[in-house]
Order: sequence, then structure tokens, then C-alpha cells
Amino acid sequence: MERDLIRWLRQRLPPHPLLRLGPGDDAAILKMANLGDCVLTIDMLTDHVDFELSKIDPRLAGRKALAANLSDLAAMAARPLAGVVALALPRQGAMDLAVAPCEGLLPLAQQYDLAIAGGDTNSWDGPLAISITLLGAVTNRGPLCRGGARPGDRILVTGSFGGSILGRHLTFEPRVAEALLLNERYELHAGIDASDGLSLDLNHILEESRCGAVVKTEAIPVADGARRLAETLADGSTPLDHALGDGEDFELILAAPPQEAKKMLSEQPLSVPITEIGEFIADPGLWQIDASGLRRSLAPRGWEHT
Amino acid sequence: MERDLIRWLRQRLPPHPLLRLGPGDDAAILKMANLGDCVLTIDMLTDHVDFELSKIDPRLAGRKALAANLSDLAAMAARPLAGVVALALPRQGAMDLAVAPCEGLLPLAQQYDLAIAGGDTNSWDGPLAISITLLGAVTNRGPLCRGGARPGDRILVTGSFGGSILGRHLTFEPRVAEALLLNERYELHAGIDASDGLSLDLNHILEESRCGAVVKTEAIPVADGARRLAETLADGSTPLDHALGDGEDFELILAAPPQEAKKMLSEQPLSVPITEIGEFIADPGLWQIDASGLRRSLAPRGWEHT
Repeated sequence: MERDLIRWLRQRLPPHPLLRLGPGDDAAILKMANLGDCVLTIDMLTDHVDFELSKIDPRLAGRKALAANLSDLAAMAARPLAGVVALALPRQGAMDLAVAPCEGLLPLAQQYDLAIAGGDTNSWDGPLAISITLLGAVTNRGPLCRGGARPGDRILVTGSFGGSILGRHLTFEPRVAEALLLNERYELHAGIDASDGLSLDLNHILEESRCGAVVKTEAIPVADGARRLAETLADGSTPLDHALGDGEDFELILAAPPQEAKKMLSEQPLSVPITEIGEFIADPGLWQIDASGLRRSLAPRGWEHT
Repeated sequence: MERDLIRWLRQRLPPHPLLRLGPGDDAAILKMANLGDCVLTIDMLTDHVDFELSKIDPRLAGRKALAANLSDLAAMAARPLAGVVALALPRQGAMDLAVAPCEGLLPLAQQYDLAIAGGDTNSWDGPLAISITLLGAVTNRGPLCRGGARPGDRILVTGSFGGSILGRHLTFEPRVAEALLLNERYELHAGIDASDGLSLDLNHILEESRCGAVVKTEAIPVADGARRLAETLADGSTPLDHALGDGEDFELILAAPPQEAKKMLSEQPLSVPITEIGEFIADPGLWQIDASGLRRSLAPRGWEHT
């Protein structure tokens, strides 16, 4: 079946200047001359955890797997180069289950000029698992890491947060172009994509930057989905709770010095809004401050990779 | 748990000149300047298919996953650079199940000067799956591909074949150093690693090289394991059957012009034997010729990635 999938893929893959040899050999060959630093990231998405295969178009599983990986490149402000895809496929209908995720991810790959360089398929008695590795190029502005935030830097975010489980987690647009544009035009100190949850991912920046942060809760852009989810669940959780902890928003969380943040906020160079939601501080710890000025500890929460 | 694993890994990973930033961020950062072409390969190994987790030391599962990937680099005659590892982990004992494969693969990574650049862990209700992606560097001798065999080239193999299921499939040494040495010292036209089965992998070369081959069955180096397996199974299969179709030998199958093949055979530059087992021919098709000179069709068989 792997040979059939390779044949199918070879017919559909547009030629790519990076690929000296595409799918079908033991490895793909990439023309890497004149490239500087690269980034390498791997993500595995699994049935019943990252999607419910029985309830969705299986193409969306493939699309999400690639989009989540692209979001990691966005978090590093890296330009997509090439990707490889491995599939663990339930034996029943394995070929269809291999083709559909590919159909879902190929348009996204093309949109981001990503070369699909190769892959691996395996049938088994387990559920569907999709593992994608992406190689990206660091631009001449350098990469964006988690470890560069400094006290006084503003916390900026793209888009809005919460309730992505209602659908957006399958259809989101990774902020690749946005990250490249912002990193090119402004001085950014740190960045991450909000995959685990706004408060938890912000905390990842704090851990690597060895600093703290105060979040103005009333400034957090709460997604419509967060409001709808709070209403639907009616479990006492607020839209803000969902914005802080749901995860899979795949928006950018950035650290920028005050003057740069001011420029970004007034220029708003993206089609999606940029919002300032707080400030990094020297003392460790994550804090929230509400409209009344009350400052309380904010427990980072979201998706733990347990 | 992913944070715990990253902490554990960071303590154990030796510094590597290729790594500007190792595990813990959204992606690893690799110093890629002055590198020419690279190869990229992904492989996923799964419980009950590639190993039986309940019957083996779980470190061997991790070792095999990396060794199988390294074997793909060997097949391309590429030098290992960096790798990333994704794990799908049964919820029960997930942390132990994450650590053990890493313990198994780290010594092998160090042996081949491979930078473990990052990873991803996911708990789920499925069995263990290990997905590894490796990046390798093509040497100035160029890569070894499946598509370069020419009529008249000799079919050369390293080591012996068959019966690896008896144990060698978990402990084999990938032929990375051997492939680099042979590609450096001799003119090789094509190569593949015997992962699916000697006859099937040889057939992969035929497909990509658009030629045929005649195999001298009496010349095939049959492993002790193939003999023991034939005896144990007592199902009518011969040691030769096992050598031709078992798979997971992870030896090299090479195409070399006659004069080069002669040199390689007389010089025997490896610690493992090089054997000539036949010849590539212009007409398509795979043939076997036995000691009596009888020529029959040889059906390629082995592990199909179904």
C-alpha cells in the first residue's frame, strides 16, 4: 500500500525547487546550500486525543497535523522548507485512511510553499496516528525563542482565545506569515504559539526566560467560541477561563520591548488584531490583575502532554 | 510529563556542535551553514508490528526505531546530523515508557554523532508508537539512490540474510559507517537497505532503475538465523526462502560496475563480508538462477507496508 500511496502522491505533488529527490527512496534529498540556521520540529497527533476520526472528515485530521506543525515554525519565526509524514493506520480501510489526511494537508503545504519530501505508512491494530516533522529556515532576523523575554517587555498576542474545541482547532490558520512579518518588521524578544493554553504557554516563556508576568485579564481577547462554550457547558466556567486554559488557539504570544509594542499596536500590520495583555516582570511567577486592580496569582493551566 | 522528559533528556544529552538550541522550545535550531545537500527520512515503529513490548526490554524498542532510521541514512550514504523523536504512549506508565526508549536510543545516537534535537510526547489509549525523523548530510561523493543501477552492474550485499526475527532485528548495527566508506572509496551506482526483504528491496531498486536482475541463489549469504528459523518452523520453508523474504536484515544491497565490484570483493574493506549475489540486466523482471544453471522467475516478497 505504501507504494500505491507514493504513486498517488507523486502524481499530486507539484515540483519544488528544494527537492532534489522526493518521496520513494530511502530518504528525500534536499538542496540545502546557502541556507543558514534551520529549525526542526516533530509533532504526533492521535485519534481520540487531537481529533475524533469517527466524527470528522478525515482530511481535517491531516490538515490539523500539518497546521499544528506549521504553527511551531511560526513560533520560531521560521520559513517552512520541507516536511515528512508518518502514518500509523488502522488495518480496516488503511489506504483510504492514508489518502484522506494527505488530501487534507497537501493544499496547506502548497499554500506555505512547503515541500512534502517523504513519508512512511504502517498498518496496525491501533488507532490513527499522524506524525509530521518539519524543517524550516531561520531568516536573517534570527529565530524567535521562548527564552528571550525581559522584564518590562509587553505581552502581545494575535487573534483571540478559547473554545477552539468547537471547531477552530481543526481549521485554524497557522500564523506563519504573521510571525515572519512581525519578526522582520519589529524587535521581538520571545515568542511561542498558544497550543497548550494561553496561561500555560505564557508560563513556558517565563520558565525559559526566567522571569514573571502580570496579565491584565480584562485585556485578553476572548473568542466567540469561548463564550459559546461557557454557555453550553454551564459548569460555572467563564469565557475568560476558557481563553486562559483551553489551548489549541494556535495564536502567537510575543514579548516585545515597550516602544516596539506601542508601534505594533498602533500600526496593526496584520489582518488579525494584535493585543497587549500584560507585561513581563523580573520576579518569577504568573499574576493576573483584573479591572479593579486586584492582583492575584494565576495558575497556568491547559493541555499537559501527559 | 513532557516537561519532565525534557528535563531528563537535557541532563543526559551531550553538547553537540550542530545544535544551537536543543529540546525544550517549539523547534530545535540547527547550525546548517556550509552544508550541501541533506537527506530527510521518517519512520514510525509500532507495538505488535515492529516489536512486542510485553516481551522485550522497552529500551530495545527505542534502539530499533533509531537504528532503522539510521539504516535509511546508510542506504543513502548520508552522514547522520540530527534527529527528532515523537512518542505515542499508553497512559499506563507513560513516563517510564517514554524514558526507556530514549535510554535505548541515546547511546546509538552518540555512537553515530547524531544530535537528538527534540521531540514530542503524547499519552493516549493506543499502544506504543515511536516516530523518528533523521536529517543527514550528503557527502561530497553524492547520495546513493535506488534509481542508478545499470545493466551489467553487479549486485553486492553486506552481511547475511534471514531469520532476523529471532533477535537480530532488535540489535542490528545500521550500516552507516560501511555505506560511507564504500561510497567514498568505490563507484557505486545504486543502494538500498534490506529492511523489507532481500528480494523485495532488490525489486525496489529495479523499479526505480527501470531494469531487471538475475540472482544466483547459491551465492546468497544465508544467516544462521535463517537456518534456525527454517528448522524451528518446520513448515517447508527453506533457509534460502527466509534469506530472500524475511526482511529486517538492515544490510546494504548495492549496484556497482563489474570492475568496482571485483575490487570491493577482493579488498573486502569492511569488518562484515561483501558478497556478489548476481547481476543487473536490461530486461525488466527479477530472476533466480540456481547451482544447476536453471533460470526461473523470482517473486519479490517480504514486508509490505500495508
